[in-house]
Amino acid sequence: MRSAKLSLVLRHLRDHGPRSRARLATDLDLTRSAASALVAELSDLGLVRAAGIERGGLGRPGTSVELDGATVCGIGAELNVHHVAALALDLSGRVVAEHRLGIDAQQESVEQVLDRLVGLIRRTDDDVRAAGGYTVAATVGVAGLIDRPREVLTVAPNLRWRDVPVGAELRARLGAPYAVSIENEGNLAAIAEALPGDPNRQDILVIFGEVGVGGGIVAGGRLLRGHQGYAGEFGHMIVDPRGRRCGCGRVGCWETVSGLRALLDAAADPEDAVRDPALSLDDRLAELNRRADLGDTRTIAALDSVGSWVGIGSAMLTNALNPSAIVLSGYFAEIGRHMRPAIEEQLQAGVLAPHAGGTRVEFSTLGFTAAVRGGATVALDAVFDDPTVVALQRADALLGGAR
Amino acid sequence: MRSAKLSLVLRHLRDHGPRSRARLATDLDLTRSAASALVAELSDLGLVRAAGIERGGLGRPGTSVELDGATVCGIGAELNVHHVAALALDLSGRVVAEHRLGIDAQQESVEQVLDRLVGLIRRTDDDVRAAGGYTVAATVGVAGLIDRPREVLTVAPNLRWRDVPVGAELRARLGAPYAVSIENEGNLAAIAEALPGDPNRQDILVIFGEVGVGGGIVAGGRLLRGHQGYAGEFGHMIVDPRGRRCGCGRVGCWETVSGLRALLDAAADPEDAVRDPALSLDDRLAELNRRADLGDTRTIAALDSVGSWVGIGSAMLTNALNPSAIVLSGYFAEIGRHMRPAIEEQLQAGVLAPHAGGTRVEFSTLGFTAAVRGGATVALDAVFDDPTVVALQRADALLGGAR
Repeated sequence: MRSAKLSLVLRHLRDHGPRSRARLATDLDLTRSAASALVAELSDLGLVRAAGIERGGLGRPGTSVELDGATVCGIGAELNVHHVAALALDLSGRVVAEHRLGIDAQQESVEQVLDRLVGLIRRTDDDVRAAGGYTVAATVGVAGLIDRPREVLTVAPNLRWRDVPVGAELRARLGAPYAVSIENEGNLAAIAEALPGDPNRQDILVIFGEVGVGGGIVAGGRLLRGHQGYAGEFGHMIVDPRGRRCGCGRVGCWETVSGLRALLDAAADPEDAVRDPALSLDDRLAELNRRADLGDTRTIAALDSVGSWVGIGSAMLTNALNPSAIVLSGYFAEIGRHMRPAIEEQLQAGVLAPHAGGTRVEFSTLGFTAAVRGGATVALDAVFDDPTVVALQRADALLGGAR
Repeated sequence: MRSAKLSLVLRHLRDHGPRSRARLATDLDLTRSAASALVAELSDLGLVRAAGIERGGLGRPGTSVELDGATVCGIGAELNVHHVAALALDLSGRVVAEHRLGIDAQQESVEQVLDRLVGLIRRTDDDVRAAGGYTVAATVGVAGLIDRPREVLTVAPNLRWRDVPVGAELRARLGAPYAVSIENEGNLAAIAEALPGDPNRQDILVIFGEVGVGGGIVAGGRLLRGHQGYAGEFGHMIVDPRGRRCGCGRVGCWETVSGLRALLDAAADPEDAVRDPALSLDDRLAELNRRADLGDTRTIAALDSVGSWVGIGSAMLTNALNPSAIVLSGYFAEIGRHMRPAIEEQLQAGVLAPHAGGTRVEFSTLGFTAAVRGGATVALDAVFDDPTVVALQRADALLGGAR
């Protein structure tokens, strides 16, 4: 019960901003002395502090309380086909450190890729310590299916990995005093969009497209992981049974018609630079945007056709889930403004509820950092769920800092 | 905070059964005096009582506490194309009263249908009073799309209703002292399957088939309603774009290939008795089961073909949601044993996660009472969420009882 009350206060400060103990007592239906005691305990744990005078307001500056961003950090990391990345967020949501490294996972061994990822996580943790903080947990997003109870990557068609105990491997390599968990990267990209305190972003469907298409479902501000953690594999809904063979071996999966490859195949001949994997994806997508802006008919037709398929699959999912918004992330976000009319047309046509059930189409503004941000958010959730978890880890980290 | 603690105790007794105050204190991390005070308050509200000696156990019979089933009831009601129905559950989950009436909604006016439904709800409430209890809330499931914020039935292709303010109409007709809410019937059928306290039934997907196909998603034991309450319209995912026109006007909706009409069309010629809407659906389905048991090739082929489509749509939804179970309800439950092989084959083939992500195929045992049971469960949720809501209504009901 104690940790539940501490959690309530900490989340309230996150979602509604700095406020006085008296205001916290009113907001949360606590006595003033109970609110003060909870704030004192959170302060001892290094999780809240007196807010700056400019935000204290109304005659008694310095009596407001806010999240203490200086010490506790969560790390999010990502293991993808073409890159590994890591990012640290402090409790107040500020980016403390960020690293990213291009790789070619299909050309390297599992061990080499894991070592590179561990190197980035270590470097990020070092940055956190250098800034006077400590890492409370790390959550690693992987481009594949994660069996959550066993913490095993079971299938990763694009990495070409199978049955790798990524959780145990990372923990053994890191030997870290903080908790390490793994998660599907689409799920992490989804949770990054569910901005705390924004009522329009608590029930959303996030569709993340690169070569593969995945994503996640956020319901009531929480990730819907499913029974074994496999929810969000939207890319493998079969929408075109007479169509192309998918990387997973099936025919007509949604990603065969809505993924990056479908767009590039339709938009350009094989020798065209926009299909050259040696060039950066950002630059190739910028070139397609430029062509569409100039009215190039082939590019526009390709965006229209792929956009229609994006809308057809989105309509299926909207019939099932009626989210407040579909947030398109990954490559969709980069080139989405040219796809929007086709997507919205199919959404209106394919959803039974009037006006597509009020579901809006939005584009992510997080770029390719969505998964690592989501990972750091999940890592920090451990603290928001039970603020007392930091007590032990803080002592460990402070001792470790003296090594 | 007080009502949250009362709620915690009441739910604990529902989910884990009768127990002593001392055990409650241990289970819920309360002091003994706090647990006793909460139990006393719940007892004053008429929600808990001393448990019978046979369950008290271990030397101190009579000290155990259990839910008091005698007084507080929730009513679930259903408004469907071919019937209206109502059922009352007491707090302990016992059926107190049940009524059902065949209608033909397409041949009657909206007013006539609503009047018949109101008559059934009144009769059910009378039964509750006659048994010495009172109704705390009623939840009505309707075979159509419900705009929850406005409480309006916006579209009901099979009822052929459009933009009917069912919530306000029912409240005006009933003039009842208890709360009345409306909900999609598929959602209610879903919540009826999420048995309190059963860990295997907290994250499920319920697919409810009659002529239309709908259902609901239960995540963490709670109904996922979506942004405006339109979640669960599985029947209108377009799975066969070159196929048949649907009642909703689109082409190839899942219900055109998995609904009751698709099965009957494939299984029998137009003049066959199994297609006679004047006969009871139970009897017609029993006849199809009999033919399949006898090895009739046409019947078996029809069940196989429709079962494959049920499996194809189930696989799409499983890729998105990874439920612990897909519970097939409505006509699927009556005839599902002959469909199971085809359903499971498509589920294994169409789900990316190994072994279909651990998702089991199950059949509802609730028959056509699923929606009314779910409605009564939702009505009682008001009490489990905040036990103090009964204080006023109880006084009203007792006064009303003396009219």
